[in-house]
Formats: sequence, structure tokens, C-alpha cells
Amino acid sequence: MQKHADFAEFTLIEPSADVSTARHGWRAKCLQRLIRLDLPVPPTVALPCDSVRAIAAGQMPDTARLMALFGAAPLVSVRPSPENPAWGGPGTVLNVGMNAERHAALARTHGTEAADALYLRFVQAFALHVARLDPDMFSAPPASGALAAALAAYEAETDEPFPQDPARQLAEVLRSMARAWEGTTARLLRAAKGAPAEAALGLVVQGMALAIGPGRSGSGTIQFVEGVTGAPQIIGRFRGQENGPRADGGISEATLFLVADPRGPALEDVAPELFGELLRHGRICRERLREEMQIEFAIEDGAIKVIDAVRVQRSSRAAVRIAVALANDGIISREDALLRVEPRALSDLLHFQVDPRVPRDRLGRGIAASPGAATGKIVFTAAAAQASAARDEPCILVRRETAPEDIRGMHASVAVLTERGGMTSHAAVIARGLGLPAIVGASELRLNGRERTLTTADGRVLREGDTLTVDGTTGEVLAGSPAMLEPALDDGFRTLLRWADNVRDIGIRANADTPDDARTARMFEAEGIGLCRTEHMFFDEDRLTVMREMIFADTGEDRRVALERLLPMQRADFIALFDIMAGLPVCIRLFDPPLHEFLPHDREGMRELAEALDRPLSEVTRRVEALTEFNPMLGMRGVRLGITVPEIYDMQTRAIFEATVEASRRGAAVVPEIMIPLVSAKREVEIVKTRTDAVAAAVRNETGADFDYRLGVMVETPRAALRAGEIAQHSAFLSFGTNDLTQMTYGLSRDDAGRFMGSYVAQGVYREDPFHMLDEDGVGELLLIGAKRGRETRPELTVSICGEHGGNPESISFCRAAGFDYVSCSPYRVPVARLAAAHFALLDRARPQNTAGIRR
Amino acid sequence: MQKHADFAEFTLIEPSADVSTARHGWRAKCLQRLIRLDLPVPPTVALPCDSVRAIAAGQMPDTARLMALFGAAPLVSVRPSPENPAWGGPGTVLNVGMNAERHAALARTHGTEAADALYLRFVQAFALHVARLDPDMFSAPPASGALAAALAAYEAETDEPFPQDPARQLAEVLRSMARAWEGTTARLLRAAKGAPAEAALGLVVQGMALAIGPGRSGSGTIQFVEGVTGAPQIIGRFRGQENGPRADGGISEATLFLVADPRGPALEDVAPELFGELLRHGRICRERLREEMQIEFAIEDGAIKVIDAVRVQRSSRAAVRIAVALANDGIISREDALLRVEPRALSDLLHFQVDPRVPRDRLGRGIAASPGAATGKIVFTAAAAQASAARDEPCILVRRETAPEDIRGMHASVAVLTERGGMTSHAAVIARGLGLPAIVGASELRLNGRERTLTTADGRVLREGDTLTVDGTTGEVLAGSPAMLEPALDDGFRTLLRWADNVRDIGIRANADTPDDARTARMFEAEGIGLCRTEHMFFDEDRLTVMREMIFADTGEDRRVALERLLPMQRADFIALFDIMAGLPVCIRLFDPPLHEFLPHDREGMRELAEALDRPLSEVTRRVEALTEFNPMLGMRGVRLGITVPEIYDMQTRAIFEATVEASRRGAAVVPEIMIPLVSAKREVEIVKTRTDAVAAAVRNETGADFDYRLGVMVETPRAALRAGEIAQHSAFLSFGTNDLTQMTYGLSRDDAGRFMGSYVAQGVYREDPFHMLDEDGVGELLLIGAKRGRETRPELTVSICGEHGGNPESISFCRAAGFDYVSCSPYRVPVARLAAAHFALLDRARPQNTAGIRR
Repeated sequence: MQKHADFAEFTLIEPSADVSTARHGWRAKCLQRLIRLDLPVPPTVALPCDSVRAIAAGQMPDTARLMALFGAAPLVSVRPSPENPAWGGPGTVLNVGMNAERHAALARTHGTEAADALYLRFVQAFALHVARLDPDMFSAPPASGALAAALAAYEAETDEPFPQDPARQLAEVLRSMARAWEGTTARLLRAAKGAPAEAALGLVVQGMALAIGPGRSGSGTIQFVEGVTGAPQIIGRFRGQENGPRADGGISEATLFLVADPRGPALEDVAPELFGELLRHGRICRERLREEMQIEFAIEDGAIKVIDAVRVQRSSRAAVRIAVALANDGIISREDALLRVEPRALSDLLHFQVDPRVPRDRLGRGIAASPGAATGKIVFTAAAAQASAARDEPCILVRRETAPEDIRGMHASVAVLTERGGMTSHAAVIARGLGLPAIVGASELRLNGRERTLTTADGRVLREGDTLTVDGTTGEVLAGSPAMLEPALDDGFRTLLRWADNVRDIGIRANADTPDDARTARMFEAEGIGLCRTEHMFFDEDRLTVMREMIFADTGEDRRVALERLLPMQRADFIALFDIMAGLPVCIRLFDPPLHEFLPHDREGMRELAEALDRPLSEVTRRVEALTEFNPMLGMRGVRLGITVPEIYDMQTRAIFEATVEASRRGAAVVPEIMIPLVSAKREVEIVKTRTDAVAAAVRNETGADFDYRLGVMVETPRAALRAGEIAQHSAFLSFGTNDLTQMTYGLSRDDAGRFMGSYVAQGVYREDPFHMLDEDGVGELLLIGAKRGRETRPELTVSICGEHGGNPESISFCRAAGFDYVSCSPYRVPVARLAAAHFALLDRARPQNTAGIRR
Repeated sequence: MQKHADFAEFTLIEPSADVSTARHGWRAKCLQRLIRLDLPVPPTVALPCDSVRAIAAGQMPDTARLMALFGAAPLVSVRPSPENPAWGGPGTVLNVGMNAERHAALARTHGTEAADALYLRFVQAFALHVARLDPDMFSAPPASGALAAALAAYEAETDEPFPQDPARQLAEVLRSMARAWEGTTARLLRAAKGAPAEAALGLVVQGMALAIGPGRSGSGTIQFVEGVTGAPQIIGRFRGQENGPRADGGISEATLFLVADPRGPALEDVAPELFGELLRHGRICRERLREEMQIEFAIEDGAIKVIDAVRVQRSSRAAVRIAVALANDGIISREDALLRVEPRALSDLLHFQVDPRVPRDRLGRGIAASPGAATGKIVFTAAAAQASAARDEPCILVRRETAPEDIRGMHASVAVLTERGGMTSHAAVIARGLGLPAIVGASELRLNGRERTLTTADGRVLREGDTLTVDGTTGEVLAGSPAMLEPALDDGFRTLLRWADNVRDIGIRANADTPDDARTARMFEAEGIGLCRTEHMFFDEDRLTVMREMIFADTGEDRRVALERLLPMQRADFIALFDIMAGLPVCIRLFDPPLHEFLPHDREGMRELAEALDRPLSEVTRRVEALTEFNPMLGMRGVRLGITVPEIYDMQTRAIFEATVEASRRGAAVVPEIMIPLVSAKREVEIVKTRTDAVAAAVRNETGADFDYRLGVMVETPRAALRAGEIAQHSAFLSFGTNDLTQMTYGLSRDDAGRFMGSYVAQGVYREDPFHMLDEDGVGELLLIGAKRGRETRPELTVSICGEHGGNPESISFCRAAGFDYVSCSPYRVPVARLAAAHFALLDRARPQNTAGIRR
């Protein structure tokens, strides 16, 4: 049988044995490390992956010889040992070797009940997993007669008696586990967890520690941290199984707990010396395996056996705390601590979460567009949201989709739910910016705006004022108010991110439009504001009126007069931002949206506007109609407005400079960064620069104060990227606005893409939604071209990215490799970005050859 | 005075003199050539440009010495001689040298009347152009006392008598002409004609031939072709000025014409020998100057003097005929003939023109969006246009702007006029495609759609049925029906283009959507159809209904059933095209527009649709609303529809293949080209290719006929250009759709750009409207990248351009240099493209070093 095998079919695990994770799987290797640490591990044999593959192909090892390694009449367990524990594997089979003969012997030594239980457990497992018989016939609890019934059923179903030869039993178990690994379901399950197609399985055969007996016996697990918080705490379970008379002559009492517990006797009470030994084993594991482990143990007649040890399952929060504690205890380095926390996991820590332990009454699902959970009363309009907020009643804004005029309503809400839209719809983008939980595209729910109802697929009707919970982490819309877990910005979190800052080599800024955003950015220790959009500042009711007057003005002079009334408000906006950011850079994007966004589009709104402006309705209607655009995304906005209606930028730059003077007088000197949106030609930059310089000179002259500023370009059109060489002649910085750049590179409106994006990604037309994950092949090439050409013209050019992609680890990796100076992302993504950037820097250190060339 | 001059201040023009166009201007050089041909040119002196520049700066030549070159008491003329005759220059001044003494002498020899006339003419010219006096005082006709009055007025205005020294007279004339050249108006005028900023002026001083006298005298011009048609014909004017007794003793009769004329005596009659001498001079000029010249001559006492010769002013039509005739007579080569016709001028020949000789009653102006002129009755709706066409009444469709549903109305009209829109608005693009004269953006005219009136800026109101003329060549909207000139597709035109085809090295195809388009394409000898848009085929009333049923279908199967009814109609469409194109390649673009273009958007239309579909109005409204897009340009169209609603492409490809079989059976074998629109990822092409191959296999199987086809991609997104390398893996050809590619590269909707494009081009933000002139820097780079990467993958890849730019000579030059296989343009641009392509090939031959490298 062994003639073709050019590998050891199995290896007894000893300290000096040649066992590796790659060849034998993680469990085999972990057990060897426990053995090397002198922990009391029962004899264990590792079957390498090659061997298991051969078994699946029908080439069996000599199982009689294998069994012989465990002594006379052994019982063994078989456990899976893939390379990565996350890849799963077939279930453990215990008590292989049980047969009538062994049963009789055990009945003599441990009593019939114990012998029956052990034999029954094996027969059931064998029937289910090896012989693949009907589970209903093999799930009886261990009771009198159950064993006999199971053996009879086995024989009836298979036409042969239950196999009695331990070597044959083991061979069958090995074969069934090896084949289960090759099954389609198992493949799909592990592929979903990131396993490669060729992932292999090792198996571990271990001598059973008999946890049943007359002496102190039982089995359990123990770990030394709490899995949700990561706090130090001894947690575990223990079930004593002494079933004979106690040494002191009394009858043993069932020991049900591990740690002292008011509900009953615990191992800590009844056997403190064994408990102490477990603690010692735990300490060794932590220090030498450099990880928080959960230990599986058995007590066999008063002696502890360490059967297995696995990494403690942990929440993101716990992962951070554990990693920091291990580093602080000198067990791992700070760099290792950083690498042990998955950056994306950090975002879980920044939001409320629905307690995973409580039941969920799900009303529907949508796209999980902005993480976190919140409970509030349903409102269907932005106005109702504001009214609700005024009453201090948390509310959830439910809309078909949101538009810029809903922003104040979104601000007033604790969460947002829309029937339409995708990851990059207005609602999703704004909610992520505000850190509001949001579900978009919840098309299972039917919204009736007129009747103000929300109907679920199963016919439940919710009305304004009903309580709802939005779980933006999972995309579930829940009824009522389930229990929540609080966000955890604890010391561990802050410590880890400080360590990350020491390691990373790309800057992280935040996109922040409001003082609230800016405060969040500072809380998360962003290094500045990389994108401050100014248009939201014009949606306040009093400002909107002035904006509309400006839009309806007939001459530049009239526009200027209207805008002068906005100047003090804008100045105050910028002073507030500069004060909060205390000298950190603030990059302000000049006015970007088309003017028609500021006009009403319904008859009622137009009537009101006509009244407010004291103009005939027909004129208002005509002007609104004249400003309407076929493709607003590609229309009269951004710098095109700046050039054709220059009074807006004049007012904004004046407000910025006056705020600079004011804020610098009472705090750190401010050097504002002014960013021009939607540039497609060098001359646009020249024209804006000339006017901006003139405004700066005027403000310097009027205030007698000197100040610097930096003017740069938001690269959002493919042409701006291609022409970056000449655009950089007049730009101190280029910041890639990857949202619009993606739209234009693909010819794809993010507002409209939702209709087919799902189908496109499902069919693999696009590998990912390019608004979600930076398209490195297309959009990314434009970033590389733009950065390269810009720096050829101006080597000191600051290059960055400020689109939604900025916070994605993949984008950060790309931008680092391209030598970008910083990425800017939503404030709530800053922690993720800081950690991810540190990861990439550390990975680069480990592979120094990769850093050459591209990074400057 | 001459101390600083390092150039000859003036040169007597002799055959051997060193006279060049660059240094002395075209006129000086032309006169030297006439002198070399032994034509009787009076003594002539050339002042080089350097000299004239020095004069303007105050450094005068020795005019006494100059005058002395013309003998005793000379009279001279001064004429401008810039490098290029198109650049204009100051007006000619005659009779310099006239003074009281010379006047007295002439009065004796030629009579007082003649002497007065000569002196008066000089005094008037001097007063106006040199002394810059009030024109009103110096415009009296030559009559008794006029001379004395002019001299007195001169003295009164300048406080000095009229200068008597001929050298001073000449100096003043030279200075005034030199300075006039430097004036702002003159600079602007010549810049508009393409003169460079540093364009210089030479001057020509020529001895006057006295065309007054007792012997046979007079002056005139003669040319040998007609300037509008280019037909051979002797044309000119002559005015005899014998003013003494005739040699035969009689009193001379005024000779008023050049060629025999019933209205009065002509030179041909009264002096056939002189007339014959003129013909000989003309023949020499034509043969030796290799050009049709207009000769200016004088007859001085029976002797002909050739004073000047200029190129005959000619229409585009005449230019073609003249060039072909010169080549056919062996005077110039065919290549020279090609280079003598400006390609853009050809488009004038393809359309009716308003006769330039008739007065115009202009109602308003707009953008000349599609050339040619047409007269018809005003209609304000597409339906009215169709009704009018049914009555055989030519009509002009007047709309605020046009939309796809107006296409049938446009087909039914003889011209289109829109209040809004730019060169690339829907109306403009479609009109150019149809060859319909069009004016767009005629914002001076106010359209009231409800009352069906069109009001001019001066308050005239036009109503439906009133007659209007659209001059799409000039952009003028004219009242009534002015006289027209017919288009001239004459033999010269065809001959020239055949010669062009022999020379050019890039293919020319036409964009043709309909059988009419295809016939036009063949008439203009396009080499195939480069872009056949199929969407218009669905706007016929019966098809539109089926389309709407398809859109409202709930399942793919229902869609398929609806589309099956369109299949025979589509097949017939393609059979017609294949038949007309007779085996020439036809590239069919699959369905492109968003589905909502096929739905009504007004309440009335939706109500009708609900009735037609027998569905509730609310459902129709909801579906229409659900299909509405924020940015249709970037939405669910093109291949995105092809992938998510694959039944449409299945139907279209089947129609194409069935038509291929049918047309190939009865004519030349057809190899259809199928083009996928709006591709942004390779996988889109793979998916469509797989389905298309399956349809082809099915049709081959059903019909038992074999056929080939070529599948390719319309490169319209920047990403498709960047990823052309992998897209070419599945593409036989790439055709750049530069309209959309320009929109996406700039982030600029052509439908919305009109609002600021004028201001942008005026401010030099964009050098040109990029929808009008290919943006070589940005969009062009994507073309180069796409072509290069595509061919790296597939060297035999066919690469072309099929956007609106395809017919522009600049684009053709660009595409040639980039090694493209062909350009495709509107059928009416094909002749221009054929000639332009020949030009570039010839220019390349002249500069062979330029062709290396880029062209394959």
C-alpha cells in the first residue's frame, strides 16, 4: 500500500519531529509547540496533508501500525488540521477504537453507564459521518438501551455488524474526513473564508484522555481574557465526570463550573491545585505561543491532560486590547501588535452595535451603507426630522432617496434608511461622512410617501412615529429597539493607533465639512482636513434665500451684493474650522455643485420663491427651467461656475483669507489650502489663481496682516490627470477626487449605477463596485499618470487622494506605492486608515525590495 | 538718414534683381515675375518690409533719389505688398507727384479736365490717407472748380499749402501707409485672416501709366475664367479715356466695355489688336504663373501697360474647376491641383446657398450648425412637419431644442431652427447627419410654443405657415424665399476627389443610419459605413409601441416575445443597408440609448401609453419614474443594457445575421461589423461576444448559410482607451467615439456645455470647443494610448474614429499620424475628408522625415 508514498504517512509528534504548519496543518504544529513546552499532551500523531490527499484518493496508510503507537487497546480522537484554522474542516470524531471488547473492559473499570456512553457516542458519530446514515436514527441521548438500539440500527441499515477492528474503524474515519474536505460545500465554505482552491487538510490522531473515572475526572476549556472586551478574566467551562466512589469514601458531587460560582461547585473550589496547574499552563501558552489561547483539557483520574489549544475567539475590540496587552507585557513587539489587528475591524469599534446575543425581528434588508446601529422613530421628511430633533426625540429619516436639501434632516436624524441607491448614493456618502448608520437600497420595503407608510415584504405597515432600528453594519432593518453595545474608544485603541502613527509613512487626513466633522477628525487624530466641501454651507435657510437671490441676479454687481451678505457667514464657517484644527492644514474646496441644486423644483416651492423674490412665477419657472441640465454631473459646476460667475469664488476666497487673518491672530498661524474643483484645463487654474491672488492682496492690504496660502487642484476629470504636467505649473497640490474621476473614467453615474451594479458585480463584469473599491487598472492608472506628470513639473508638489476610496486599505496601499503624500477619508475611517497605513509600512519593511523605485 | 540701414532701402525691380516674397511681399515678387515674362510693366520699385518698418519708426529713405528712378517729373502709384495677399494692407495711392507745375503741363497736353481729374484724385487721397482730414470735405466728384476747392480746403485745414515737392509727397505717402499697417484695426483684421503677429508690409512704387490721352487710352482688368463657376470665359471691365481728337479726325466715343457688348462699344470691337494682345498676356500669365490671374492694365496712347496681376477671386466651386483644368492642361500636376483646393471649401459645394447677390432680410442670427440653405413654411412640432411633408409642402421645424422623438419631424423638414443648443446639440448633430441646413442657439428669436409664434428682436411676429429661409452656412434666419444657388457636384469635383483617392493613405467611411444616408455615402464614394446607429430604427410609430411593450415586460421571455415582432423590421433595415453598400463594410453599433428615451414624459403621453398597454396609469407613471436617470449620459445604456437586458442585442444580432445571409445570397458577400457601445471593461465584450457567437451559430444552422462577421468595440469611455490592451483580446476593431469620449474626458455634457462654451472659448480657457475640434492633448492622448495598446495585443486590429470629429481635417491629420485605418464622418463631410486626407499625404511626401515612427 505504501509503495507510491514519497512522504511519511504519519508522524508521532515529538519535540524533535519534523512537523510544519504547511505540511501538517496548524493544529498539528500547535500541538507540537505545546509538547515542546512540556505541557501534558496525550500521545499525538500527525497525518500530513499529502497523506490525507492520498487517503481521499483511496491510498490508505497502515492504520494497524498507527493504532499500535497508542499502546494496547487504545481509544483515539481524530481532529482536522488545515493550514489555517479559519478554513474549518470535518468535525472531530472521538473514541475511535471502541468495540464490544473494550466496552466490556470499561464497564468493569468505570461502570456500564460510562462504558455505554463512550461506545454510543462513537457509534453515533461513525454512523453519521462515516456510514452517512439517517441522523434521526442516531441521535438518541445516552440512556439505558440506547447503545443496543444504535448497534442494531447500524446493522439493519448497513447489513453488517458495527465494525469491531480498531484499525478498520480508524481507516474508515480517516477516509470519510479526507473525502468530506473535498466536498463541494466544504470547498465553497472555506473559499468564502479566503482559502485558496488548493487548500489541503492535515489530520491529527490523539490518544483519548478518559475524562470519566473514579478519580478526579472531567473535561473543560479555559481562557484568560474575555472575548468581547478583551479584558483579563478567567473564563471557561468544566464538567466533572467522576463516576465512582470518591477517595474519601463519599459519593462525588457533579462539578459543573470552572471558576468559583454561586450556582454550584466549581473546579476552582473542589480542586484548587488542579486549577492552579491550569493557570500555569495558560501562562506558559500566552508567553511562549505569544497569543491568548483557549485551552481544551481533560482530567483523567486527577491528572490534567492538555488536549488542544486554539486562539481565543475575539471581537475587534478585544483584538485591540489583547494585542496591546501582549505588547505592553513585552511578549510581542509593538509592530506585531499592529499587524495582529485587521484595520477594517476598527470601524466596528466606532459605532453602536446591536447586541449579537439578542434576538432580531427583521423587517427587511438593504445595503449596509454606513456602519453602526441606531434606534429612533420613523420620519419621512427632512422637516419632520428637524422637528423631532427639536423635541429631543431620536428619529430615523426614511426616504426613497436623499438629495442635498435633505442634509439638515440627515443631521437631525440618528440613522438613515432609503429605498433606493447604492454604496455611493447621496444618502450613503453623506451618512458615512456624518458617521450616521445607514441602509440604502432597501428595496424589499415599500415606501409610500403620500400616505407616509413603510410596508414590509410580509405586509407589516409602519407609520411615522413607529420605532425602528437601523443596523448599518449588517444592512438589517429591525423592529423596535433591541439592546445595543456601546462604542469603545478605549485606551487600547488609542495606544495602538499612536503606535501605528510611529510606523506609517503616508499622511492621513479627514474629509470634514462642518465643525462637528472637524471635531471628529481631531478626536481620531487626523493630520488635517484633506477635503472641506463648502456647498453644504449654503443650505441653511437664511443662506439659501441669499443664494437664490444671487442666482436670480441679472448682473455681476447684483450677484456681488447678494454674496456680500453671505461673506460674514462663510468667514465664520472657516474661522470655526481653523480654530478647531489649530494650525493643522485645512484644504477647502471652492463651491462645486450646479446652481440648480439650490432652486426648488416643485410648483409649490417655485411659488414661494416667486413671492420671496417678488418676481412673477412665470419668470421663476423659466429661470429654473433654463438652469436645468440633462447631465448635471457633467454640466455647469465646479470651476466652470468659478469662471463664468466669478463672484462666488471671490466671496469664498475673501472669506477664507479674512478667516485666516482672524484665526491666526488668536491661535496657531493658518496656511489655508484652496482647492479648485472639476478642472479640465490649465487655463482654468490660471484664471482662478489670478483672481485669488488679487483677493489675497486686497485682504492683506485691508487687514495689514500677512499670510500665505496654497492653491491646488482637485483632479476629477480624466483630462486633468492627463494634463497634470501643465496644471501643476500653477498648483501647489493635486488631490484626486476619485468619486468623480471614477464616474468619468467609466462613463458611469454613481447615482444611476445602482440599477445594474449588483448584476454587474455578480456576473463578474466588474470585479468590484468601482465606487467602493478603487479601480486600480483604469482610474488607478490615471492617478499614476497624474502624480508622475505633476511631479515632473514640480517635484515638491503635494499629491493626495480625497475621494470616498481614501479610507480603504487597498487604496492606501496603492497611494503609498505611488508615493502620494496623504490620503483623506471620512473622519470615521481615519482610525482604519492609520492602522492600514502602518500595516503596509511594516509589510514593506519585511519585503524591502518592494519599496524601491516607485516611492520617492 | 541711411546710416543705420543694413538693407537696401529700395530696389528697382528688374529680372535679375534680388526680390523675394518673404522680404518684399507678394506683389513685388509677382510684378518681377511679370517683368521676367517680358510683359510691359511700367518701371517699378520695391520697398522691402525692413524698409517699411524703418519708415514707420521714422527713418525715411531718400525719396528724391527714389523719385528720380522714374525719370523727369514722374507720377507714381504706391501699392501695399504684404507677404500674403489675404492680409490686406493700406489702400493704393495714385498720382503721387502731381503738383501745380505738372498740372499745368498736363493741361496743355491732355486738356484741363483730364489734368484736374488727376490732380484732384491725388489731393483727395492725400488729404484722407496722409493728412487724415475729414472725408466729407474731400469727396467731391471731378467737376469744374472741385480741384481749387480741394486745394483751398486742404490749406484751410492744415494751415499750409498742398505740398508741391514730389519727394516730400512720396515720403508722406510712404509714412502714412507704413503706419496704417501698424494700427490696431489693421492688425485685428489681418489676424482674423490668419496673419501672424509679426506680419510685415512691403510697398511697391510704380510709374503711372497715364490712361488718359489723345491716343487710344484707358484702363481695365481682364480675367479668363468666371469666378463663381470657374468656367472659361473672358471677363473684365474697360473704360476708355481718350479725351482728345481721334487719329481719324473724329471725336472719340467712350469705350465702356472690355468684351463685345450690346450695351455699348467695347475694347474687343474698337481695338481688336489690343484685345488680342491682352489675351496673349493672359495666356502667358496662366501658363507661366500656373494660375488664373486677373490682370490690371492701362492703355497709354495705344500701348498696353500691365500694372498688376492678382489671383482671380473665386468661389469654392470655381477653385475646384480651375485647379482641375490647370492640371488637365498640363500646367500643374494633379498633386498641385489637390493642394490648391482647401478641403473645408468643398462642403460649400454640397448644399444650396442663398445667392450672395440678392439682398437679405435678416430676422435673426444663430450658430451655423449645418451648412446649406433652405426655404419652407414654419412648423413648430414634429407632427406638423410630417403633416406638411405629406402635403409636399417644404417646411422648417422650429423648436426650442430637439429630442430623439423629433427625428421623424426633422426627416420631414427641409431645415431646422432651434432657440437653444450649440454645435453639438442634438439638433445640430442630427441635422449634419441628415445634411439638413440648421441654425441652433438662435437666442435672438423668442419662441412661444403655446401660442406657436416666433418673435424677432425687432418685434416681428411669425406664425406657423409663414415662409422662412434658414441659411445654415452663415447662421442667418431670413424672411421669405431669397434666390438660391444650386449645389454643384460637377465633373471637376468628381475628378479632383478621384485624384485625392489615388493619393491618400487613410480610409474614409461615412456615418450612416438610414438608407438615405447610405445612398449619400455612396454618392460621395465613402469606402463603407463606419457607424450605423440603430436606435433611430425604433422611433417609427409601430416600432415604438413594441419597444414600449418590451420595456414594460416583466420577464425576459415577455421581452423576447415583444422583440420578436421587431426582428423582421430590423432585418429589413439591415438588408436595405447591405444592398445599398453592395459589399462595402457596414459597421453596425448595437442599441445604445437609455430605455427612458422611448417613454413619454408628459401626463398626456403616459395616459395614452397606459391605455395602449392596458395597464393602470399609476403603474406606467411609476415605471417611467423608476427609469428616469440623474445623468442619462452616464447611466444604463450601451453595453450595460446589452448585459442586463440581453434580449435586445440577441434580436439585433439575429437581424444582422439573417440580413447578411439574405443580402449575400443576391449580391456581394457581406461581412457585417458589429460594434458594442459604451464598453468600460473587457468582460463586457466577452459576454456580448459569447452571446453573439451563439446567435451566429444558430442562424448558420437554421439557414444552412455560412458567413463571417467582425465584432468590435466603440471606445467611448476613458477606461476603454486605457484598457484597450485587454479589450482588444476579443475585438477585431476599435472605433473611437470621440463625442462621448470627449464628454467623459472633460467631464462635460455636450447638451449642457452650450451655456458656457462661448465664454470659455472667448476667454481662451479652451482653445476650441472640444466637441467641434478634437482635443489632441487630452482626448487625443487617449486615442494614442488606446490604439497603441490595442495593437500591441493584436497587430492586425482595425483602428478608427467615428465621432463627429471624424470629418475635420485636423482630426484626419491626427488619426493618420497615429496610424489609424480609417475615419468615419457624416456623409456630407466625406468629400472634405477625402481631400484633406490627400493633402496630408502630399504634405508628408514633401517632408518625408515626418512620417517615420508613428505610422505603421
